Amino acid sequence: MQLINNLHELRALPKEKLPDLARELREEILKTVSANGGHLASNLGVVELTIALHRVFDTPRERIFFDVGHQCYAHKLLTGRKSGLERLRHFDGASGFTTPAESPYDPVVSGHAGVALSAAQGFAAADPDVNEKIIAVIGDGSAGNGGTLEALNYASSCPGKKRLIVILNDNRMSISENVGAVSQMLNRVIAAKSYNRIRKKLRNLLVRRSRIKAFFSRIYEAVKSLLLPPSLLFESLGFRYFGALNGHDFGQLLPVFEKLRQIDGPILVHVITEKGHGVEFASNFPTLYHGISGCDPDTGEMKSAPGGFSEAFGNAMLKIASERDDIVAVSPAMLVGTGLSDFAREFPERCLDVGIAEGHALTFAAGLAAAGKRPVCAFYDTFMQRALDAVYHDIALAKLPVVIALDRSGAVPDGPTHHGIYNCGFLRAVPGLTIMTPGNETEIEPMLRFAVDLAAPVVIRYPRGKSARKFPCVPLQMGQAVIRRHGNDRDPVIWSCGAEVSVAVDVAEILTGKGMDCTVVDARFLKPFDSEKAFIFAGRRQFTIEDHCVSGGLASALRESLDGINHAPVTSFGWSDNEVIPHGEPDVLRCNFGLTAEQIAEKIINICKKV
Amino acid sequence: MQLINNLHELRALPKEKLPDLARELREEILKTVSANGGHLASNLGVVELTIALHRVFDTPRERIFFDVGHQCYAHKLLTGRKSGLERLRHFDGASGFTTPAESPYDPVVSGHAGVALSAAQGFAAADPDVNEKIIAVIGDGSAGNGGTLEALNYASSCPGKKRLIVILNDNRMSISENVGAVSQMLNRVIAAKSYNRIRKKLRNLLVRRSRIKAFFSRIYEAVKSLLLPPSLLFESLGFRYFGALNGHDFGQLLPVFEKLRQIDGPILVHVITEKGHGVEFASNFPTLYHGISGCDPDTGEMKSAPGGFSEAFGNAMLKIASERDDIVAVSPAMLVGTGLSDFAREFPERCLDVGIAEGHALTFAAGLAAAGKRPVCAFYDTFMQRALDAVYHDIALAKLPVVIALDRSGAVPDGPTHHGIYNCGFLRAVPGLTIMTPGNETEIEPMLRFAVDLAAPVVIRYPRGKSARKFPCVPLQMGQAVIRRHGNDRDPVIWSCGAEVSVAVDVAEILTGKGMDCTVVDARFLKPFDSEKAFIFAGRRQFTIEDHCVSGGLASALRESLDGINHAPVTSFGWSDNEVIPHGEPDVLRCNFGLTAEQIAEKIINICKKV
Repeated sequence: MQLINNLHELRALPKEKLPDLARELREEILKTVSANGGHLASNLGVVELTIALHRVFDTPRERIFFDVGHQCYAHKLLTGRKSGLERLRHFDGASGFTTPAESPYDPVVSGHAGVALSAAQGFAAADPDVNEKIIAVIGDGSAGNGGTLEALNYASSCPGKKRLIVILNDNRMSISENVGAVSQMLNRVIAAKSYNRIRKKLRNLLVRRSRIKAFFSRIYEAVKSLLLPPSLLFESLGFRYFGALNGHDFGQLLPVFEKLRQIDGPILVHVITEKGHGVEFASNFPTLYHGISGCDPDTGEMKSAPGGFSEAFGNAMLKIASERDDIVAVSPAMLVGTGLSDFAREFPERCLDVGIAEGHALTFAAGLAAAGKRPVCAFYDTFMQRALDAVYHDIALAKLPVVIALDRSGAVPDGPTHHGIYNCGFLRAVPGLTIMTPGNETEIEPMLRFAVDLAAPVVIRYPRGKSARKFPCVPLQMGQAVIRRHGNDRDPVIWSCGAEVSVAVDVAEILTGKGMDCTVVDARFLKPFDSEKAFIFAGRRQFTIEDHCVSGGLASALRESLDGINHAPVTSFGWSDNEVIPHGEPDVLRCNFGLTAEQIAEKIINICKKV
Repeated sequence: MQLINNLHELRALPKEKLPDLARELREEILKTVSANGGHLASNLGVVELTIALHRVFDTPRERIFFDVGHQCYAHKLLTGRKSGLERLRHFDGASGFTTPAESPYDPVVSGHAGVALSAAQGFAAADPDVNEKIIAVIGDGSAGNGGTLEALNYASSCPGKKRLIVILNDNRMSISENVGAVSQMLNRVIAAKSYNRIRKKLRNLLVRRSRIKAFFSRIYEAVKSLLLPPSLLFESLGFRYFGALNGHDFGQLLPVFEKLRQIDGPILVHVITEKGHGVEFASNFPTLYHGISGCDPDTGEMKSAPGGFSEAFGNAMLKIASERDDIVAVSPAMLVGTGLSDFAREFPERCLDVGIAEGHALTFAAGLAAAGKRPVCAFYDTFMQRALDAVYHDIALAKLPVVIALDRSGAVPDGPTHHGIYNCGFLRAVPGLTIMTPGNETEIEPMLRFAVDLAAPVVIRYPRGKSARKFPCVPLQMGQAVIRRHGNDRDPVIWSCGAEVSVAVDVAEILTGKGMDCTVVDARFLKPFDSEKAFIFAGRRQFTIEDHCVSGGLASALRESLDGINHAPVTSFGWSDNEVIPHGEPDVLRCNFGLTAEQIAEKIINICKKV
């Protein structure tokens, strides 16, 4: 960067140079994200806010917690990670989220919504008597998440609460547009542009006329509450409310932050920002430019359309919903990402976005199902971790026909906070749950039809993008695997599922090239698992390939189905459950964990040679 | 029951007879719970409320959702389940929670907090245009849970919101005393006993004196908000607020409920009840009489002390905390149940009850750990399902030294909503997590010491009550199993963990009695698993016995550790993952699922004979 090299220089920079610094950071962010992909609009929106926080507060002694963490690029640039950010989301570059492994300026790992304030309260409570502030930056979308709401509720009881400052970064959006009373309330402030003026006039009016000043001052506070609903809400939760500030105006941000350092919390500062600020295409289409795979930095033209499984899911939903009135889509703020944009336009009344609230989404869907609907709840696999209890307690115990479509399953470039590789161990234990894995996009529609026809809960799990191979569409039968390639009776059997079936076939072709045949089985159902085929193949050396951690998924399903049976060894290929899988290009990650087709084939050959 | 036989008769009963009916229900509840165990204080508190709801609303066409569900006994008595309730929590009796399998008056399965309003909204949204009301009864403790808060936030956006009535059953308690701003706010109402009087006076004062009536009426509303904070909160969330009503006074409940049937929601009715109402010992000690194992119905004398693992945990915490200043206990409203009462008295500042908010508890603990503390977070295994993401995302990714003590692991009399038998599949996949299972109470302290000394996340999992056998205390070594009984080199090996090691030894003794020896291994660590011992025993027939479902726990750990290895068959004994495990006496459940020592021994003999 040209203007500063470190935070000392930021704090010494003349105030009037700050807008230039913001411009510089924005250029850097646009350059980085257009080249590497990542989160664009949210990062452009918090540039001034991030500069102001680091300028006023004594970071890292005073700590900033970015909720969700995907808005941390300016923070990374200011804290010495420019070179890392140039290789954003590459294996050798910076993570797209905060992580203490990267910098002492990142107090915790952040990637999921609604956790920053809870973690920040932990820091405050650990040293309740010191004065250093603990700052949680929370988006308005995230403010409606159960995690944030639990923490807002706890703030007034939290030891060290005087240290707490919540920055409510109000951009009127989560990934998509916001839902819920909290966000509606925030919007009301924005609508009342002149509320500050009204407040002052009213105060003067009342205070001057009053004979009992204190009494009217109280009334004034109450009236203020009516004019300013967020204040009402947050003050009722025990916060001191400040705002709303223009989050792009250093003239507003700096003096307020300086004042806040001197007073006791819990404090909530309401800051209004514009997603995509400073880059026209991003501010015009903030949802589109929320998370991207890369774009032209001048025109915004996208590098690649999402397509693949998500698109197939969206199309299948459109078709099936036009045939069946009982189909309802439910999504926790991921309608666009899961391919439901067209569905939302076509069936607005049957498309319910409940905001960033995975647990509520599934329990709400359970209610819809119990009342006779066929809800299909679509979101990302990593967020399934946040609502596993709902699958068991609210859906499976009553055997309710809720379909859960898990997009972005498997390892993803975003890294550990977003890998969808940990849920199957719990999900497979849920009684009565069916778990399906389409081998390619063309299987999405038949699987979705199969799922909504079933009077029971179903999970369909599929990755982002496209599968490498297409397979003939064999009719689905409950719990039945399909043989995608027949080997000889003594050759090894490779089990796989989902898009990994393509890898299994690649492996088989490499093996054939080396004079060794094999059978490839597409499990299709992780639950109920095809134990009959497992039994038939028990005498043959069996292998599993899956885009899930080696514990709890396909390998475990195969092994459990061989309970009490004499069988040849089973060897599993999947992600380690001993170490955190980092961020990076999926190909690089695969290679580092020995999971490319070539590596797997070589290992299989070595293993079979030994026997 | 003497006064009525069904809801038709309830609706026809003269009003003045209702208190007699309430008395009759209370007697029945006391008789039932004192004999069978169950939830006492919460059920005694909602008798009038439940009668009033069923009298006014057209159930089951209009639907009542009891959040948590443990306060449904009066509801069950009124809806034809008296004989079932006499055998409450027995295998052949009624469940202690609502479940559609039992009655059309139970719209959903309920047992965990914070889900009723989400499910109710699903029902409302399924038929948004009809007028039948959908009623969610939510405790004030539950109101601070993330699930309820997400649903409160969504209510104003929910299709069919006009149908929604939330009854806030405010008894100033969850299992223990309540925490958080929402509950503090509710308390302020109660403190201001005369608030109704003040409201009226103030209104008259203001309205009479005002020249611009409308203006002052608005001020009045604002002042009301100050006097009546819950109204402020809930109206800001888009609800019409009514209350606070005396929940034991039919004269207040009935006319308000009748009025509410005629107006559009979302409506929130604030009802103040007393936990344990009508039974002196229960109302004096509502926490003690929340959930009991049985008692003398006249004196309240308890049938059995909790003791066992929970007590050992509480004692160990006291000892270790007196030696180490960095130990902090965190609990989501389960301090008493997890044995931490003494700890809370001894170290009030290091004992943080965050309310019914499991996710917040763990993320808060993560923050404490990142800031240098050694938090020990104690709660029940079934509620771990609600916060699995926090274990992975907030704790394990940053390798934070949080200890999670999971009490009430394994199958429990309460039934499916409370069995602690589903978490290990997810937990074992979490990288860097250590999972320990004490074989008996004496192992709790060394395991807890081992855990807090480790600079990494740890789960310790143990059941309610006492283990059947005591074992010599062998020093702990990371990931190492202990052989509790040595057999011969060709005899089968029985793996077990936790209190099930006692069962495994019982099995071994039965086998010995029938001339067959075996080795018994106490795994101690589910992760890292002792794969060395698994390898040593690979050539011998291996069995696993665990108080977990057969998928994801000990059996899966053993099988995974044999990856790629030629081994004799592994046969697992544990709870089915294909069917819901019902409520009932653990012995009866075990017997029904073939899990008594005798049944297991017989199966092992048959299996070994065949070979």
